[in-house]
Amino acid sequence: MTPTQDDDASRARPGEPATDVGRRDPIAVAYELWREHGWEDAADGMALVTSLSRVNQLMTERIERTLRPYELSFARYELLRLLAFTSTGRVAMTRLGSLLQVHPTSVTSVVARLERQGHVERLRRTTDRRVVLASITGSGRHVAEVATRALNEDVFSRPGLPLEDVRTMTRLLGSLRGHLGDMTTP
Amino acid sequence: MTPTQDDDASRARPGEPATDVGRRDPIAVAYELWREHGWEDAADGMALVTSLSRVNQLMTERIERTLRPYELSFARYELLRLLAFTSTGRVAMTRLGSLLQVHPTSVTSVVARLERQGHVERLRRTTDRRVVLASITGSGRHVAEVATRALNEDVFSRPGLPLEDVRTMTRLLGSLRGHLGDMTTP
Repeated sequence: MTPTQDDDASRARPGEPATDVGRRDPIAVAYELWREHGWEDAADGMALVTSLSRVNQLMTERIERTLRPYELSFARYELLRLLAFTSTGRVAMTRLGSLLQVHPTSVTSVVARLERQGHVERLRRTTDRRVVLASITGSGRHVAEVATRALNEDVFSRPGLPLEDVRTMTRLLGSLRGHLGDMTTP
Repeated sequence: MTPTQDDDASRARPGEPATDVGRRDPIAVAYELWREHGWEDAADGMALVTSLSRVNQLMTERIERTLRPYELSFARYELLRLLAFTSTGRVAMTRLGSLLQVHPTSVTSVVARLERQGHVERLRRTTDRRVVLASITGSGRHVAEVATRALNEDVFSRPGLPLEDVRTMTRLLGSLRGHLGDMTTP
């Protein structure tokens, strides 16, 4: 590391635009900078994408905080919740990826972790021993229910917007999902 | 692994609700299941949170695909973009976390990676050698500009919704951010 003069460029100087983001909405600052640089066509899209990323980060923190007492991550909770909804509690590993919209590698590691916790076991079909099923256990069913109750209470039933806005946002997000390739509800 | 009878519960049987998510919007299916289980107060919030998570995942994939030719992740791009916006290209490491709204550990590893790529160097202040600054290099400035151009063209200027909806969504996301603790634009 080489020495340099004291120079912290993120503080505003007289005559310079206020880049001291500390007291301002960083997304509003970025929006202004985009427009100042002549990227007006991209500024709104940039602000949307950045806002989505930020809200998702905050929501994930909130969810993981709620799930911590149950020793679950959101990914593990979602897999357990899916299994618990099925009548037999068993789904083929290869189907879990598409049902949960995650990569098969992710499914394997989530199931392995849940298996170590005793919430899931892996079984083979007798009729076709190549097929591996993820099967929820009694403790898995129990923790899926109590975790759902906690998420419903702490996160889902108070999302931070009036119901009408929640529905508007879900609808618009649905349009975006469709545009980006998902199966959606028209 | 113990053998079991052929039983894949995620296929719909006659008389059973259609749980075969493969052909339906998985978020709509989850919404129905939430209501069927009596969790009506939480169903809309659950659908919103799940939609946010999914859209963010799809957007991140799109962004990382656009940045791949430049050998950048979104996190590395954002840090370079921030440095490139400042007049001197230098910001104290300790400030980067709050400016980018990420954990200091994350800043350290992102800067280290960019340093190995030659896009950033770490410097110490002469006036206070405890302060470490992240400083963008010539190649860092160059890649920040070409990557911004690519993101603007491929992602930001065609977000997948009409401008009015983009702005509605950004505004609602801003309300959510404020509710979850961020500095926002009122």
